[in-house]
Amino acid sequence: MAAKKLPIENLGFDNKIDNNRKRTINQDGSFNIVRKNDFFREFSLYRWGITCKWSHYWLAVLFVYISINFLFAWIYMSIGYENISGIRLNAEPPYWQCFFFSLQTFTTVGYGGLHPQGILTSATAGFEAFLGLMTFAIATGTLYGRYSRPIARLRYSPNAIIAPFKDINALMFVIANDNKGNLVEVTAKLNISWKEKDAKGNDIRKFERLPLEYEKINMLALTWTIVHPIGEESFIKNWTENDFIEKDVELFLFITSYDDTFAQTVHSRSSFVGHEIVYGAKFIRPFHVNEAGETVLELSKVGNYENTQLN
Amino acid sequence: MAAKKLPIENLGFDNKIDNNRKRTINQDGSFNIVRKNDFFREFSLYRWGITCKWSHYWLAVLFVYISINFLFAWIYMSIGYENISGIRLNAEPPYWQCFFFSLQTFTTVGYGGLHPQGILTSATAGFEAFLGLMTFAIATGTLYGRYSRPIARLRYSPNAIIAPFKDINALMFVIANDNKGNLVEVTAKLNISWKEKDAKGNDIRKFERLPLEYEKINMLALTWTIVHPIGEESFIKNWTENDFIEKDVELFLFITSYDDTFAQTVHSRSSFVGHEIVYGAKFIRPFHVNEAGETVLELSKVGNYENTQLN
Amino acid sequence: MAAKKLPIENLGFDNKIDNNRKRTINQDGSFNIVRKNDFFREFSLYRWGITCKWSHYWLAVLFVYISINFLFAWIYMSIGYENISGIRLNAEPPYWQCFFFSLQTFTTVGYGGLHPQGILTSATAGFEAFLGLMTFAIATGTLYGRYSRPIARLRYSPNAIIAPFKDINALMFVIANDNKGNLVEVTAKLNISWKEKDAKGNDIRKFERLPLEYEKINMLALTWTIVHPIGEESFIKNWTENDFIEKDVELFLFITSYDDTFAQTVHSRSSFVGHEIVYGAKFIRPFHVNEAGETVLELSKVGNYENTQLN
Amino acid sequence: MAAKKLPIENLGFDNKIDNNRKRTINQDGSFNIVRKNDFFREFSLYRWGITCKWSHYWLAVLFVYISINFLFAWIYMSIGYENISGIRLNAEPPYWQCFFFSLQTFTTVGYGGLHPQGILTSATAGFEAFLGLMTFAIATGTLYGRYSRPIARLRYSPNAIIAPFKDINALMFVIANDNKGNLVEVTAKLNISWKEKDAKGNDIRKFERLPLEYEKINMLALTWTIVHPIGEESFIKNWTENDFIEKDVELFLFITSYDDTFAQTVHSRSSFVGHEIVYGAKFIRPFHVNEAGETVLELSKVGNYENTQLN
Repeated sequence: MAAKKLPIENLGFDNKIDNNRKRTINQDGSFNIVRKNDFFREFSLYRWGITCKWSHYWLAVLFVYISINFLFAWIYMSIGYENISGIRLNAEPPYWQCFFFSLQTFTTVGYGGLHPQGILTSATAGFEAFLGLMTFAIATGTLYGRYSRPIARLRYSPNAIIAPFKDINALMFVIANDNKGNLVEVTAKLNISWKEKDAKGNDIRKFERLPLEYEKINMLALTWTIVHPIGEESFIKNWTENDFIEKDVELFLFITSYDDTFAQTVHSRSSFVGHEIVYGAKFIRPFHVNEAGETVLELSKVGNYENTQLN
Repeated sequence: MAAKKLPIENLGFDNKIDNNRKRTINQDGSFNIVRKNDFFREFSLYRWGITCKWSHYWLAVLFVYISINFLFAWIYMSIGYENISGIRLNAEPPYWQCFFFSLQTFTTVGYGGLHPQGILTSATAGFEAFLGLMTFAIATGTLYGRYSRPIARLRYSPNAIIAPFKDINALMFVIANDNKGNLVEVTAKLNISWKEKDAKGNDIRKFERLPLEYEKINMLALTWTIVHPIGEESFIKNWTENDFIEKDVELFLFITSYDDTFAQTVHSRSSFVGHEIVYGAKFIRPFHVNEAGETVLELSKVGNYENTQLN
Repeated sequence: MAAKKLPIENLGFDNKIDNNRKRTINQDGSFNIVRKNDFFREFSLYRWGITCKWSHYWLAVLFVYISINFLFAWIYMSIGYENISGIRLNAEPPYWQCFFFSLQTFTTVGYGGLHPQGILTSATAGFEAFLGLMTFAIATGTLYGRYSRPIARLRYSPNAIIAPFKDINALMFVIANDNKGNLVEVTAKLNISWKEKDAKGNDIRKFERLPLEYEKINMLALTWTIVHPIGEESFIKNWTENDFIEKDVELFLFITSYDDTFAQTVHSRSSFVGHEIVYGAKFIRPFHVNEAGETVLELSKVGNYENTQLN
Repeated sequence: MAAKKLPIENLGFDNKIDNNRKRTINQDGSFNIVRKNDFFREFSLYRWGITCKWSHYWLAVLFVYISINFLFAWIYMSIGYENISGIRLNAEPPYWQCFFFSLQTFTTVGYGGLHPQGILTSATAGFEAFLGLMTFAIATGTLYGRYSRPIARLRYSPNAIIAPFKDINALMFVIANDNKGNLVEVTAKLNISWKEKDAKGNDIRKFERLPLEYEKINMLALTWTIVHPIGEESFIKNWTENDFIEKDVELFLFITSYDDTFAQTVHSRSSFVGHEIVYGAKFIRPFHVNEAGETVLELSKVGNYENTQLN
């Protein structure tokens, strides 16, 4: 099978060699890049809010909630707690009662057992209620942003394999949709990067695109085995198992798809370095038909392989 | 009419034969696939929230609302209901009064007839109000997600028909927009799958794409009759009525369009198996012009057909 | 200038002739189509909420708000207004006080001057507060949907003109962005429909696409004059002023663009019938450079033309 | 390197010469255009709300909040402050107490220390609470709109440079992503505009597209040096440093990319006039590999250059 001619690609990566450089992309799709920038240009509260872990999100929201209320408790104390009608003198310390008054104001629950009197305290409370509504607006917005952001949660096989394919061999990967929605118009691109000596004997890093048997499938209902046939024109023709290690190979797999539930295009990527490429194996089919005639897909088996003889 | 050459397509479906296997896609576009996955990878609260039925949505929201309040009522009882000022001793049981206090806190209505005293009860109430705001934020977000999600509610003819077309015959479907918005740039793709014996005499399942008279229309204002002309190069040339049943045919119709109201691309699909294909029929035009000069489209008539002679 | 070859287009319109049929598309882009469908399939609350007029939106929201509160006032009266603590017997009628209690519950303002007692009234109030939060969630969602929906508010010239163009004539339109955001990647398609006698002498309606000088501009910062050169291969070559009327011509202009503010693709369309086509005119340039060196675009002048001699 | 043939482009800009005309696009991507339009067609509250500066946004929200409450305070005074139960006669002026009652109503905090009595005051308060909820819905919607709007915050080099490139020279720009998200499928287009005498000796403004070494990169993880090789077919072949000034050159750089975090396409642009083009320079690489093997990108160094000899 002849390799198809594909347009020249520019990955946007650096081609200088540094001996201790880590892989460019980690298996989870993140980059080994450190950015130095002004704090305010680099940081976006919303971006952080929708991309951080859930635990961090909830801790941040709670922390902001409690901090603001401690601050307002202190303000009400400074103005004078006697301006809050309903403060009980023989009960818990006034600071705590101011704190609870603040909680009741910020959340707009406003029981009224405690309520403000006097211009300063009333105005502060009015501002705090306003601030509370806007703060919860931000929390709501980021919460919705987190939820509604389409993320292609693809399950990539942990390994790339070199497997027999027709009368040659092929480099193979397998992917599956790791959550329930439908992914349609799924497109794959495969690129390889390796170390080579140039004409002057210097190490340089080369980047090439590897053509695939199919670049697109209509729908990712089950799994997709992505295949680069190692034919006459393949850049990795005649490479031995050892070559993949010594040439410091990194394979970049880019998947684009359309999430039917969220009606948006999503991008995903993974990378495979030398020791993650298994020489002489074939993937085990992770689905079967049950008695009811339904196809059963077992996601934990995606990427399982068994050793085999190469052509 | 010669079949146009189309790019090879990969539907992403399995081509192994299992005799009891159900159709791949149901008429409503869902798949006969069972997924086995870790619960937390598979389940997304938001995805469930925006795709479940309305009745399930409201039941879930109400259930969460009531459960949380029963829980907090129990917490307030544990701390001691005497910390809620306004509890009436000669009225309904304290547990119920705690429950109502909880309702008033969770919704931030906070009348104040009941209001908290003491550090523990006040802090709990402050946390409950926070939790209430975040819970309603989630409910609001999923509600908005449900509403704003673009869904191509296409009405597909319940049957595919084989109809006379020019001097040959054609396989035809008809679709219409089942709700009021405008669908523009509507694209159709038709694929067929059937059972065949391979060279060694084993049953295999074949997949092919069937070319269409038009693959795209500008706008789906009325109806669109999708036509595969059964010409010299058609894969289904010379197939008899019986062949569609015996070859266990499944026709996959994929529609992509752009929803003008929501400004998003939407995908839809349907499938037709052997007994849903009517041999020798033609569709009845479901619209007419009224006295006011307007074109009247009757959606209940979309897909109606009458029997006819084939060429 | 030779007409470019363009792909055959299917507008999705009906080609049967009905003598009293109105134009297919109105100048504002709406269709003269009446849809008959089940109410629940046809109607979507959200779609209505984001596409109706602002006045209708606010009236609907207010109407729902007031109706629900009258209903709950009646429920509280049925349970017994003595269960609402704070009802004043010598003041306004109890029904009104129940209504105001309901308002205070539904909006979660809950002053507490009136507050519920007893299981039935307390539970009803708890449910009403829940309902209020969800109702305002719907109102908020549709409000956001209205706002955030990208609409290409294009200003089309009210007339198409036939103007001199190089050494031939051309059919011209002019469009401008009618609000402040940036429209980029603006694409135009022009189609014509006219009445003709077929081989058997029957009236049929023909549809053809008219090629344009430019089908796309990078950015709609000022205005865009859309030009169909009436060259040797044009379908409307040699048509006289009268032909446009007698052939019952309808020109369909479709504009697609990308709204930079909302980051979404928007579609717009207009239509021009015979008497809206001016024979022998040229558009007046609606912008000039002021002393500060800025280009001043006067939108009210977009589409102004003056009569001129044709080639 | 031969210039590739590119499709003819129409930027949608004016080609008339006005001697005092400012550059068409400023470096920040804004236009030097003044629009004259009806206020209500031109202005969109939402568009303003999501595109104005943060300081303006917060001032506007606070101003609306305070104004509405002053208005309602005046209404409550007009009805008679004796209808607000809890007004203290020996304390701050009644107008202020009405104002605070209004604050507590508008935010739905409703302590109840002040609460309405009588039909008119109660109904007004009910309406104000409704208005408050809708106002905060608008504020929340615009807040979310601000946050969630994808903006390509690209850092463009402040200068275009003419640098040696292989055995010829090239016009170069460098861009980097100025915030943390991933930009994928990044596409660049370069256009030039300059002043020239036409056949009759009149000044006209010409627009041409300049082909690039790469028009697209897969991912903008580090920086992208955009290169127009000044080969035999380049429009700017043999131009001297002075030509760029005298011909009143303006270079338009358009970048389109896909923001992975927001899952939306974003457009960005910049412009470079004569004195912003440095003749004989090369960009300094703004990243290096640290001891941990990570690539460190220093954004403040993007666009730094050093002088060099041209080919």
